[in-house]
Amino acid sequence: ASVHGMQTVTLIPGDGIGPEISTAVMRIFEAAQVPIQWDERNVTAIQGPGGNWMIPPNTKESMDRNKIGLKGPLKTPIAAGHPSMNLLLRKTFDLYANVRPCMSIEGYKTPYTDVDLVTIRENTEGEYSGIEHVIVDGVVQSIKLITEDASERIAKYAFEYAVNNQRSSVTAVHKANIMRMSDGLFLRKCREAAENYKDIKFTEMYLDTVCLNMVQDPTQFDVLVMPNLYGDILSDLCAGLIGGLGVTPSGNIGTNGVAIFESVHGTAPDIAGADLANPTALLLSAVMMLRHMGLHAHAQRIQTACFNTIQDKRVLTKDLGGNAKCSEFTAAICERVQDLD
Amino acid sequence: ASVHGMQTVTLIPGDGIGPEISTAVMRIFEAAQVPIQWDERNVTAIQGPGGNWMIPPNTKESMDRNKIGLKGPLKTPIAAGHPSMNLLLRKTFDLYANVRPCMSIEGYKTPYTDVDLVTIRENTEGEYSGIEHVIVDGVVQSIKLITEDASERIAKYAFEYAVNNQRSSVTAVHKANIMRMSDGLFLRKCREAAENYKDIKFTEMYLDTVCLNMVQDPTQFDVLVMPNLYGDILSDLCAGLIGGLGVTPSGNIGTNGVAIFESVHGTAPDIAGADLANPTALLLSAVMMLRHMGLHAHAQRIQTACFNTIQDKRVLTKDLGGNAKCSEFTAAICERVQDLD
Ligand SMILES: CC(C)[C@H](C(=O)O)[C@@H](O)C(=O)O
Ligand SMILES: CC(C)[C@H](C(=O)O)[C@@H](O)C(=O)O
Repeated sequence: ASVHGMQTVTLIPGDGIGPEISTAVMRIFEAAQVPIQWDERNVTAIQGPGGNWMIPPNTKESMDRNKIGLKGPLKTPIAAGHPSMNLLLRKTFDLYANVRPCMSIEGYKTPYTDVDLVTIRENTEGEYSGIEHVIVDGVVQSIKLITEDASERIAKYAFEYAVNNQRSSVTAVHKANIMRMSDGLFLRKCREAAENYKDIKFTEMYLDTVCLNMVQDPTQFDVLVMPNLYGDILSDLCAGLIGGLGVTPSGNIGTNGVAIFESVHGTAPDIAGADLANPTALLLSAVMMLRHMGLHAHAQRIQTACFNTIQDKRVLTKDLGGNAKCSEFTAAICERVQDLD
Repeated sequence: ASVHGMQTVTLIPGDGIGPEISTAVMRIFEAAQVPIQWDERNVTAIQGPGGNWMIPPNTKESMDRNKIGLKGPLKTPIAAGHPSMNLLLRKTFDLYANVRPCMSIEGYKTPYTDVDLVTIRENTEGEYSGIEHVIVDGVVQSIKLITEDASERIAKYAFEYAVNNQRSSVTAVHKANIMRMSDGLFLRKCREAAENYKDIKFTEMYLDTVCLNMVQDPTQFDVLVMPNLYGDILSDLCAGLIGGLGVTPSGNIGTNGVAIFESVHGTAPDIAGADLANPTALLLSAVMMLRHMGLHAHAQRIQTACFNTIQDKRVLTKDLGGNAKCSEFTAAICERVQDLD
């Protein structure tokens, strides 16, 4: 996969509406003449010889080869002991940074305007360690694991992100007043990283205070960095401010360029196959992917076409307040992409 | 302390603006002829013989005697190893349920209207266990402790609260998809409790989903019950929806009628002593206290006087959008209380 010429991306369409919105993205990429070809794979978990769950080897190989993936929604496994595929993917490829930009979309009415922030979530440990015990009957403990290495790398990532994306401040979100050692360590690593980025304003804030301030005035925030669970919560909260998971992109970033971009909404089984889904979240995730790949001009053009289509209000899917089909909304974006050429 | 005749309540004015807003509440109670006398105490932590921190014995005795306390804000201790006094109080008196009603105040403009929900937070364990270890250099763990007993009692409390306060639904907030054992146990106890309250609608929802839905439409929620940290987060988020911690009451409920009601905002050292503080949060906490004591008529009258004063807009403290002093705002409420006689 090189920046010039055709690059290959692993595409995991996913379940429910996944295939439809993936098709939408492929159409728009084609209209925009993005120099990308797709290597389509599925990630239904399989059990290895030792009973451990893993993603299918050929999907793993595809990702190892291409380094970059785009993923639709996956249905939550219901079998006991079956892992969340989303988590398994993050783990398999050590995707340590979960990045979710939250930007108000002009013309799409929500209670807030001018939101423009990014949550950066530690994606490998913390409350998601998976380590739990029954101590005695009726007493259970879950272990939140915070390491110096993971804290340092996510803190550094946040500041690098700020620098590379013309952002001016980073806020570390924590509860070090309660979890003095674990969140304390995380916070210390953020403070240390801040020392190396004097041009970026650094602040620290309790998670509860962030939540309160966020709903009162989200425009005060810029880049936020935090442990795993806090990121899970805060990214959803922020998505709510700008219209929900149907319009918010997400990227899971690893080392050496490895990354998976995904829409984080559900599989919407009730409308699956009915050509009613909204592909915006997956499309904007794909736009993040293009930026990650250095394809900035294509990214900008597709994003503009998408936002203009929403702003124009004539062709919108139902959840966006219109009554167009997914394919019609997609066609409208394709048309604009070509006009922007 | 009996329901008839004069009852005594332990008053902990607290730090910063604490004394001013406590005086405001006392004035309003006097104007409303509430049959309560105050036993004023402080809670500066002292160190016991073994080095453990504790609240002053005479404050403990006062609470043991009176069972009911009203508390202003306490400054956060900065000494290493010094515990949060708020947490120490909750622990000392086994105040297992933290109850925070969130109601839109008519006439006080916020991005949301018609919010009317209550967060009920397990207040003794979970992420607040205080158990943390360094495993090896650079690897820290914090233990989230969930017990069957504490989960059962908070679940039951939530349903009892719903029944006693004409509420129609209880939502259990959890991340049992991630913390399967701990949140799983909490959730199971909520489900079991629900079985005994067939008239109350029971739902369960992921914390991240609650946050997203909350900022999109808080009116869909009624009573919410959750582990400690989630309650910390969600109660602040909800406070943000209706105007912040300056207008939201809080109660910490124990067994056998023991309870401490408190404003959860800060000590506001910048305006302390300047007669500029807003006593609303402490006053509404005192109103919760009156209901807890069975003094419903007094509670209703004071609450109405407070809300009417805010709605009237003529005499408001600065944070509420006016330029009245704390004492003037207090006098305005006193006047209305008397008019409502
Ligand atoms: C699907 C679920 C395991 C996941 C999480 O909890 O991280 C989701 O909520 C997310 O935010 O990506
Ligand atoms: C003061 C602090 C320890 C406390 C908490 O974290 O519980 C506060 O935020 C609260 O919500 O009462």
